[in-house]
Amino acid sequence: MKKSIIIGVMGGGRATPEDMDAAYCLGSLIAKNGWVLLNGGRDAGIMDASAKGAAEHNGLTIGILPDDNCSKISSHIQIPIVTGMGNARNCINVLSSNIIVACAGGAGTISEVALAVKNNKPVILLNFDLRKAFNRYIRMNLIHSVRTPQEAIKKIKGLLNPPLNT
Amino acid sequence: MKKSIIIGVMGGGRATPEDMDAAYCLGSLIAKNGWVLLNGGRDAGIMDASAKGAAEHNGLTIGILPDDNCSKISSHIQIPIVTGMGNARNCINVLSSNIIVACAGGAGTISEVALAVKNNKPVILLNFDLRKAFNRYIRMNLIHSVRTPQEAIKKIKGLLNPPLNT
Amino acid sequence: MKKSIIIGVMGGGRATPEDMDAAYCLGSLIAKNGWVLLNGGRDAGIMDASAKGAAEHNGLTIGILPDDNCSKISSHIQIPIVTGMGNARNCINVLSSNIIVACAGGAGTISEVALAVKNNKPVILLNFDLRKAFNRYIRMNLIHSVRTPQEAIKKIKGLLNPPLNT
Amino acid sequence: MKKSIIIGVMGGGRATPEDMDAAYCLGSLIAKNGWVLLNGGRDAGIMDASAKGAAEHNGLTIGILPDDNCSKISSHIQIPIVTGMGNARNCINVLSSNIIVACAGGAGTISEVALAVKNNKPVILLNFDLRKAFNRYIRMNLIHSVRTPQEAIKKIKGLLNPPLNT
Repeated sequence: MKKSIIIGVMGGGRATPEDMDAAYCLGSLIAKNGWVLLNGGRDAGIMDASAKGAAEHNGLTIGILPDDNCSKISSHIQIPIVTGMGNARNCINVLSSNIIVACAGGAGTISEVALAVKNNKPVILLNFDLRKAFNRYIRMNLIHSVRTPQEAIKKIKGLLNPPLNT
Repeated sequence: MKKSIIIGVMGGGRATPEDMDAAYCLGSLIAKNGWVLLNGGRDAGIMDASAKGAAEHNGLTIGILPDDNCSKISSHIQIPIVTGMGNARNCINVLSSNIIVACAGGAGTISEVALAVKNNKPVILLNFDLRKAFNRYIRMNLIHSVRTPQEAIKKIKGLLNPPLNT
Repeated sequence: MKKSIIIGVMGGGRATPEDMDAAYCLGSLIAKNGWVLLNGGRDAGIMDASAKGAAEHNGLTIGILPDDNCSKISSHIQIPIVTGMGNARNCINVLSSNIIVACAGGAGTISEVALAVKNNKPVILLNFDLRKAFNRYIRMNLIHSVRTPQEAIKKIKGLLNPPLNT
Repeated sequence: MKKSIIIGVMGGGRATPEDMDAAYCLGSLIAKNGWVLLNGGRDAGIMDASAKGAAEHNGLTIGILPDDNCSKISSHIQIPIVTGMGNARNCINVLSSNIIVACAGGAGTISEVALAVKNNKPVILLNFDLRKAFNRYIRMNLIHSVRTPQEAIKKIKGLLNPPLNT
């Protein structure tokens, strides 16, 4: 059996309609590429929108819940991982993902970007400007910035299959 | 999308050939019933045997790893959840499972049985005698004992679909 | 600076008056010996009684709370460690203690005994019978049984300062 | 018994001599004010320097270790809390502190600032510029910036004892 490729999608529990649309589209493209979508599992914001996009295109969706039960789970999550450990689960989100895409979010999302690069996981920022605070990691090529879900997918493919001689 | 039914299979990193065979059989039956198998994810003992049984019968397998990487993962795990939190992940194992089957094991497995009943999760002991220490929970009908994988499956079905008037 | 010697006292949130008295006495003796008392931090049962015994005898008390705030903390805890991770904090309880004393308790306490021996931490059972389930670890001399707080203290001293030629 | 006031000092495992000096001074001032110092516990960088400053001025020092043992602990930590959960312990650092002072650091420190404000804990940045990424929280008055340990102490006092009519 081959281990699945897992794409983590991070982002806020509240989001603008534009960011929700982008998250839905991103989820759908992750599913179409045969990857597994992993997120924070809740029925809100980027979590719900990205899971919906993947689930409606036959993708497998995994939600790493901060709660100790499933009462706040997105209806588009197929596999709930119930941690009961609040934001400490943010570490699990990034450690379990091959690549992380971070949509615009607040402190929770920033913590995930920070924990990802701390663990040498590549991060793709989708319309999320974290310059200055993360400049060191942008220069290290651990953090990439894109404008559309399509660009995010292209970047994921490049990271999964780096061209020869690089 | 319907949430999957997740059956947690706990047990030692070392096991007798008989217990390994039972774990393999249990994994295969979990897969045949369309349930997801969740375990501790390592390439050893009951974890590896139960994942192998499920994976070779087209079941989805999830491994909740104590490590912060996949170097010790069973080759039969499709979805690694990488926690990096050692035995604290035992809590996640039981919170994420609808029902836990515990095969014979040592202190790690006992901790999972204890954490399961602490969270009101039903536990099925497969050839694993924990009487006396857990008598209170056996009387509460939270812990059940069976002798074969087939009996474990029958018990799981009963717990998932309790008969009327009980 | 010398690292403190930390004695973990585990036990149920509900307890008999006799066990509460023993926990209070144990806490007082831990303080009188200059050791730090660590427990689960809540305002209930063995946790509250043992913290009270230590605090009223000028001992330092540390509570490893499962909650993400201090609303349920014992008033006898001086240093709250706020984990927000539910029973996953049981691992921290045992890893942080040099020696664990387990008073009579339920599944939570059993999980702590199991996690302790899994990590090779010595456990002293104070009027808490876990024979059969833990026989292997009793034989390995990782689990000891005593009847009174005074005997527990004597056993702690023996474990901290093992006699020569043993 | 009164709960102690706990000041969390975050910062990198590597630091410039100037930041090390500031961390030592900060630790000493925390001790002189009768507060408890809490940090990440390791024998490196800001962790070691701040613990040294506090310990050498008779302060109580608590280290929340990411490791499952004390092999990398600072010799200036009196109370090691051994988590065995890697960076997931960053959550515990901030939840357990009344106020967090963040010295210059990398992704780990940024994750702690993010987790702190996510939990509404006040953060004081000591010569650590996180503008832009954290502007929202600076405007909410959750993040404050200072240039010297003395200014940090003054800010801590203001946060602990807010003046009337504000």
